[in-house]
This record gives sequence, C-alpha cells and structure tokens, in this order.
Amino acid sequence: MTEFVDFAHRLADAARHETLPRFRTALAVDNKEDDAFDPVTDADREAERAIRALIESEQPEHGILGEEFGLHLPGAYHRWVLDPIDGTRSFICGAPTWTTLIALEAQEQPALGIIDQPYIGERWCGTPQGTTFTHAGSVRVARTSGCTRLAEARISTTDPRSLAYFSKAEGAAFDRLAAVCKLARFSMDAYAYALLAVGQLDLVVESGLAHYDYAALAPVVMGAGGVISNWSGERFDASAGGHLLAAATPELHAAARAVLAGA
Amino acid sequence: MTEFVDFAHRLADAARHETLPRFRTALAVDNKEDDAFDPVTDADREAERAIRALIESEQPEHGILGEEFGLHLPGAYHRWVLDPIDGTRSFICGAPTWTTLIALEAQEQPALGIIDQPYIGERWCGTPQGTTFTHAGSVRVARTSGCTRLAEARISTTDPRSLAYFSKAEGAAFDRLAAVCKLARFSMDAYAYALLAVGQLDLVVESGLAHYDYAALAPVVMGAGGVISNWSGERFDASAGGHLLAAATPELHAAARAVLAGA
Repeated sequence: MTEFVDFAHRLADAARHETLPRFRTALAVDNKEDDAFDPVTDADREAERAIRALIESEQPEHGILGEEFGLHLPGAYHRWVLDPIDGTRSFICGAPTWTTLIALEAQEQPALGIIDQPYIGERWCGTPQGTTFTHAGSVRVARTSGCTRLAEARISTTDPRSLAYFSKAEGAAFDRLAAVCKLARFSMDAYAYALLAVGQLDLVVESGLAHYDYAALAPVVMGAGGVISNWSGERFDASAGGHLLAAATPELHAAARAVLAGA
Repeated sequence: MTEFVDFAHRLADAARHETLPRFRTALAVDNKEDDAFDPVTDADREAERAIRALIESEQPEHGILGEEFGLHLPGAYHRWVLDPIDGTRSFICGAPTWTTLIALEAQEQPALGIIDQPYIGERWCGTPQGTTFTHAGSVRVARTSGCTRLAEARISTTDPRSLAYFSKAEGAAFDRLAAVCKLARFSMDAYAYALLAVGQLDLVVESGLAHYDYAALAPVVMGAGGVISNWSGERFDASAGGHLLAAATPELHAAARAVLAGA
C-alpha cells in the first residue's frame, strides 16, 4: 500500500481545500430524509467531488465508494472509500472534531486509512506498516496506550442516547461498560479513534456505523497497535448493526466484549 | 476594564506556557475526593501558580479566586477568578476542547472574561465593549447567531446523564428542551459558550457549575450579543444549583426558559 500513501495525502489535501473555507461560516444544510435530521453541507459534496476527480484522473482503474455519490467501478481490485465530512453535526456546530475519512481497500480489505482534521491541522495515516500522526508540520509514530484494565480506561462514543445509532438494548450495554470505566466523553465521531491511536483514549464503542465510517478507522487503529472489531470480536459488518469496538490492547478489548455481552 | 485587557492576555499566555507542553503526554492524575472522579493535573496547578504569580507581582491589590488554590484578598475591589483547565476530562482524553478561563470582577460583577484554547490557538476575550475572537494571528469581532426559534437551535451541554452535574429532574428538563431543538452536542464544557459567541451554537444549558466556571463565560457571551442567566432568567448562583442558560438571542432564551420550566 505504501505506493499509494503520497496519493492518499494529496486526496486529503484536496478535500481540505473544500472543507476548511466553509467551516464556521453560514451553511447550506439539506435533509437527506424527511424523518431524520441528517445534515449534508456543500463542503461534504464539494470535498467528495474533488477527491473523486483526482482518483478518476490519476488512478482510473480504481473503484470509489463515497458517502455522497455512491459506487464507481464495483469490481475494481483497489477501491477508495470516502466520508468527506465525518461528524457533520460537529461541523455545523463549529466543533473542531469533524474529520475527513479516506480509505483504500485491496480486494475489499481495508489497507490504508487517513483521518484528517483540517482546522487544527492534524492528520493520522495508518497502513500495515504503522500509523503516523502529523501536526503543525511534525510527524511522529502513533501508538495506542498500554491500558489493559477497564477501571483505568477512558471510553468514548458519539451519542448512546440517540436512537439513530443505538437501540435501547445497545445503549444499556454501553452504559454498563461506561459505568466500569474511568471516564467517558461523547460527540467526537471518528476523531475518537484518532485519539485512541495516539494513546489518549482507550476504548471506543459505536453502533449503526456505515462501511464508509469504518474503512479508514481500521488501518489507523491497527497500525497504532490497537484492536478493532464488532462487539463480538468478529469482523465489522455494516449490514449487521454496524457495531464497532476499538481498544488500546487485546486484554482491554476482551474485557470490554465481555461487559457488552452482559457476561 | 479595558485597562486590564492586555494584562488578562498576558495571564492567558502564562497559563498556556504551563498547559500546552503537558497536553497529550502521560499525566499525573490525583483524585480530590475518594468517591468521585475529579482529575487534577500538574497542568492545572502549575497554570494557576503562574497566573497568581503575575497578578501578585503586578497587581498586588487585586484579589484572586482560583479553582486550585482558593481565595486571596477577599475584600479587594478587583478580583481575578481562575479555572486554569476547564474540561479536565477532555484534557485527559486528548480532546482539543478544554480551555483556560480567566475572569476579572469589579465589586463581584463579572467584567472581563477570557476563554483560551491553547492547542488550537483560539482565544475569546469579552468585555462590556464587545467580544473578540483570535485564531491563527487574526482577530475578529465575535457575534452570536440570530437564532430565535428552538426548532432551528443547536444546543449543547457537557453531560446530562452525569449525576455530578444534573439531578434526574434537571436531566429530564434538558432532554425535553433538546428534543425540540435541531441538534445536540455534548462534552464541550466552556468551549460550548465560546462557540455560542461566534454564532456556531445557539443554546448552552448546564447545571452544577461553580463560580470559577461561570465568571469568564458571562462577559464573553454578553459581549457577543448573547443572553446568560440561571434557568429562570435570574442571576447565576453557584449556591443554588449552579444552573446556567446561555442563548444567542433574548427570544431564544425566553423560549428555552419556558421548556426548562415545564411550561
């Protein structure tokens, strides 16, 4: 995958060029569905257009799956998976924890992931060779914390009370787990996985995630030494609840799985 | 108060010098109380020490009330009110939404407030003459949004489910209000009031706040054109529940008060 790392950074730069000038300005917000609030901004659409244009011009054999404009070249060996603005609610509120997610899959397996926060100027890039964290021009290796005990774990999820993400039973399972952790923080979307990768959070638990949410997170978390799976320790499946459990260490991952399962 | 604005900025700079190098490093965390998790970091203590040293040397007749080291010169006309790290849980999780709060009171009335976020490099400074927002070297006037309707309002609170802040009845009142707003975000502590001041959030509702939480927020919110009070529209009182309701406009403030009261 290393041959595509520089290209992936250029895709993130192109997205940033569309998102950042629109952040903290008056926004045009549409609703995708009548019955659910799901904001889509100009920034979302224009960033995905900019990324797609670069891929189609420079890697014309690569497939693309994007949140805004769907699937391109479904049978391609390489496929880019895009969420131009993850955390649109944070974007709309001016919170600096929205991100751009860019993943490259090889034969449908996540192999490269970028989590980019343009306003702060932070970028995480994960591959099987490791995860890097770039901030203010300096690059360092990202590593998860060594946390193995729930009582010492800092846990995060986006919103356990929102039925858009969690069923009542899933919310109760999260509450059970959070109650035995050291502290909990909310509303950070994919940024929470980025904090896990630099050892600042120890557990992230979510439900209702889509494929384009997950694809970039796995390489970043695994490249930093973390563990990521569904709530049962198996492979993430967006069609089976979109459950995601990321942990700093295998021991912490196993302990969290047991509590989520009600054991 | 304008004579003290430059000095207040220097206090924030001194705090930043202590907090920023300790952010996203391994932290020494103590518990203030055995039965509640209340992290206090070296950064918290050292930042307050640095601010106090500057005040005591350059404004020796001014009083000081700080979260970490208590009250100095209780009868002074001018009093600085300090919360060196608001959002210690965010700080511990690496989230970029902790802030340093510095207020100056004249005869116990808040008259100047600074909300500083050193990692991003953002600073809000409010006085009766207005609120400024500084980011990446550029300064602009901060103004709240013109939002007057709950259905269009972006609302925030730190954690309505934590009994450290909200009683069950207070949590239910928040839920009632959030349910009629456009969207809700959590876990931002004082940073939410800063986003209100630049028109990115429209309502912030909290309970259980202390005097050192509140003192810097009022000048920033009011200087930007917003309204801030307890949940009944009266003056904030830390000894009576520490309820705080900040809104972009008087109309929105009145509408939110009515829902919180159960009307």
